[in-house]
Amino acid sequence: MSFYRKSCLFAALLLCQSQAVAAPKNIIYMIGDGMGPNYLTAFRYWHTQTTDNPVKQTIFDSIWKGVAMTYPKDKTFVTDSAAAGTALATHHKSYNGAISVDHDHNSLYTLMESATRKGKKTGLVVTSQMTHATPASFYAHQKNREEYPQIADQIVDNRINNKPVMDLLLGGGQNDLIRDDRNILKELELLGYQTETEFSQLNQLSSLPAIGVFHPVAFPSAIDSDNQRLADMTGQALNLLSASEDGFVLLIEGSQIDWCGHANDIACAMAEMQDFANALELVVEYTKNNPDTLVMVTADHETGGMSLGANSQYQWFPNIIAQVHNSSKTISKSLASAKNVPVDIAKAWQKHVDFVLEKSELVAFTQIKSNKALTAEQQLNQLDKQIKNIINTRSHTGWTSGGHTALDVPVLAYGESADIFNGFQNNTDIAEKLLKLVK
Amino acid sequence: MSFYRKSCLFAALLLCQSQAVAAPKNIIYMIGDGMGPNYLTAFRYWHTQTTDNPVKQTIFDSIWKGVAMTYPKDKTFVTDSAAAGTALATHHKSYNGAISVDHDHNSLYTLMESATRKGKKTGLVVTSQMTHATPASFYAHQKNREEYPQIADQIVDNRINNKPVMDLLLGGGQNDLIRDDRNILKELELLGYQTETEFSQLNQLSSLPAIGVFHPVAFPSAIDSDNQRLADMTGQALNLLSASEDGFVLLIEGSQIDWCGHANDIACAMAEMQDFANALELVVEYTKNNPDTLVMVTADHETGGMSLGANSQYQWFPNIIAQVHNSSKTISKSLASAKNVPVDIAKAWQKHVDFVLEKSELVAFTQIKSNKALTAEQQLNQLDKQIKNIINTRSHTGWTSGGHTALDVPVLAYGESADIFNGFQNNTDIAEKLLKLVK
Repeated sequence: MSFYRKSCLFAALLLCQSQAVAAPKNIIYMIGDGMGPNYLTAFRYWHTQTTDNPVKQTIFDSIWKGVAMTYPKDKTFVTDSAAAGTALATHHKSYNGAISVDHDHNSLYTLMESATRKGKKTGLVVTSQMTHATPASFYAHQKNREEYPQIADQIVDNRINNKPVMDLLLGGGQNDLIRDDRNILKELELLGYQTETEFSQLNQLSSLPAIGVFHPVAFPSAIDSDNQRLADMTGQALNLLSASEDGFVLLIEGSQIDWCGHANDIACAMAEMQDFANALELVVEYTKNNPDTLVMVTADHETGGMSLGANSQYQWFPNIIAQVHNSSKTISKSLASAKNVPVDIAKAWQKHVDFVLEKSELVAFTQIKSNKALTAEQQLNQLDKQIKNIINTRSHTGWTSGGHTALDVPVLAYGESADIFNGFQNNTDIAEKLLKLVK
Repeated sequence: MSFYRKSCLFAALLLCQSQAVAAPKNIIYMIGDGMGPNYLTAFRYWHTQTTDNPVKQTIFDSIWKGVAMTYPKDKTFVTDSAAAGTALATHHKSYNGAISVDHDHNSLYTLMESATRKGKKTGLVVTSQMTHATPASFYAHQKNREEYPQIADQIVDNRINNKPVMDLLLGGGQNDLIRDDRNILKELELLGYQTETEFSQLNQLSSLPAIGVFHPVAFPSAIDSDNQRLADMTGQALNLLSASEDGFVLLIEGSQIDWCGHANDIACAMAEMQDFANALELVVEYTKNNPDTLVMVTADHETGGMSLGANSQYQWFPNIIAQVHNSSKTISKSLASAKNVPVDIAKAWQKHVDFVLEKSELVAFTQIKSNKALTAEQQLNQLDKQIKNIINTRSHTGWTSGGHTALDVPVLAYGESADIFNGFQNNTDIAEKLLKLVK
């Protein structure tokens, strides 16, 4: 008995005196787009690689608190990122496609609007275009997620006390912000924002308000570029925001986990998870040094119906996945440009993947390359499909969909008040709890 | 701030004074075989049926505490029920196929052995044969899960202080217990056990020790019989065990959730989940009235790679599933016996399923029935496959496997010390925590 009594009293002391009771000064809200619980399991074993190594818990595992259901207010149980973003930003469910508006297109008050009203600084860091559904749900109100220019306009136009809602924006999306009809970046500059368009100049941003919009649309995939891009932006965001006397609310999205899921590309997904994990490591470290901070991590939905094990095989081989160093999209372009088949196919493959193609796999690629009936685009698509088929089959990774599923998502939290996320909840409950802490 | 301070102090008071600190008198350990987190999501929405109804949390949702990883100590990350049962019963990982033995076939001490040594009564309630991997891991030590007679022998032969480990056994498995070479039931009778072989006589068991072995192998599927069978046995087990002055440890397995998962039969799986939920409702009610009880609910692994949504459709239609009233196995037998095709096919279908077959679906069945090249068994298999194809396609239920996957499983708990299961853990940690409470 004493074993648990001691632990309990100690935990209670911590919980009620130094933690949990106070509204945190800072809130860091991290959303892994498409990051179902299966992605957390996969990421852990992808790190372990083989069963010869001890399985270590990941940064995600170490802060597990609960789960959330994700259904939208729509004719389906399966949410899109807009309805889920709306739920997570406003604590209201809406229809798929809605950016923080209800069914009558009335605006739903967001966490970032609330934070701004309370004098907190606000920031967002994403690897998609910053006008994409998840981040947009935090600063814009739009009836249709695909109305990107209108969403971009609200970066300037949606104001609280004559101040744009976001003090800091880091991500992609130049095409939406720098347009012929309106230059949002220029307008922000006139409002006093520091601006950057080169990622290499990220650290030149020296004070708020600021915006760094680094790519025409999204960042390149982590597996094709680097898996520190989200952590780099997160570090800079924390530098800039932590000067705020009244604290800050920072949204960080692992935007492209979802895109790898849509593509059923497991190597791509694991690299994006690593990128997201690197950012989380930094955030947890920050919170250790700034304990008046709450970190909340969740997903908007699961993507792909991904499983570790498939086709009645009691196996999952993450060491196969770890040998793949590019997205299937990139590998397919490389294979498409191979001239002498099958020799150049094998050579091109080895530039991207450590394991050697089996004869039957090489034959399948050669057949696609030799099929004169295919257009260039059809050939690329078939190569792409075949690459993923090889990786998924060899690793025994299963997928049921190119879209989302209704699976409950993980709820992780760390720091001040983290335990309020323990157990089962609705995705709207997460926003409601955070809104209460900001109020 | 006061909102959380009050809640926290109240929670801490409850936690440290009336709950959590004490080793509970009784432990009720419930294992949903194959019950990945996806099954909990599916069960909730299957209850809700359509998005026109409010989504209510289930009994499972209401006691969510954490998750557990399930990998075995083997050349794979995907566990079978034997290695997982061993982990959950002994707090040691072993190889797939192992029944509470290590790689050298040495016995690993189980929770039930510990409970018996401490003078607690022990019980198990399952809908499989009671010699199946999960229950066997709690009272037997065997190098291979398929050695059913040897496992059955240990119901009598594995003793602590000259007393068989289990005081109460309820489930199937007559073929393993009543054999030509040895009659385990008779031997138990001679040791003073009350015995029953008719399920209708379940409540005739009036004191411990007792055994009810009700079917040659397993119970019929819940969807083909009733979904109160586990609850009925659970109620009787609680009646018999609660007389124990020093408390009891009761294992309750929803054995056949897994089997429906292997078959990729979602209607079958939901009926088994209902059966398991009915037992859990009873257990939670018991615990409310007997607060010195801990309820722990988990799964050994996920089965089937099941997803809510498939084939890029952002839909899952549990109302389709709710219209299916038999297992595909039973429906296929009925269709196989139809004489005049397609008329009798349509009639036979309507005996089992509320929705009407579309023309193309009827044609597919007719083609199978008219294919003279098929043996009777092949025909049955093809009908079975086609039935599941219709239900999975219409409901947008995805499956990646006829086997298990490595997905982390839910950890639920209620009652005394329930919070020790909060957050992320290894499946062995669950057993370790319970063993500590029994010691």
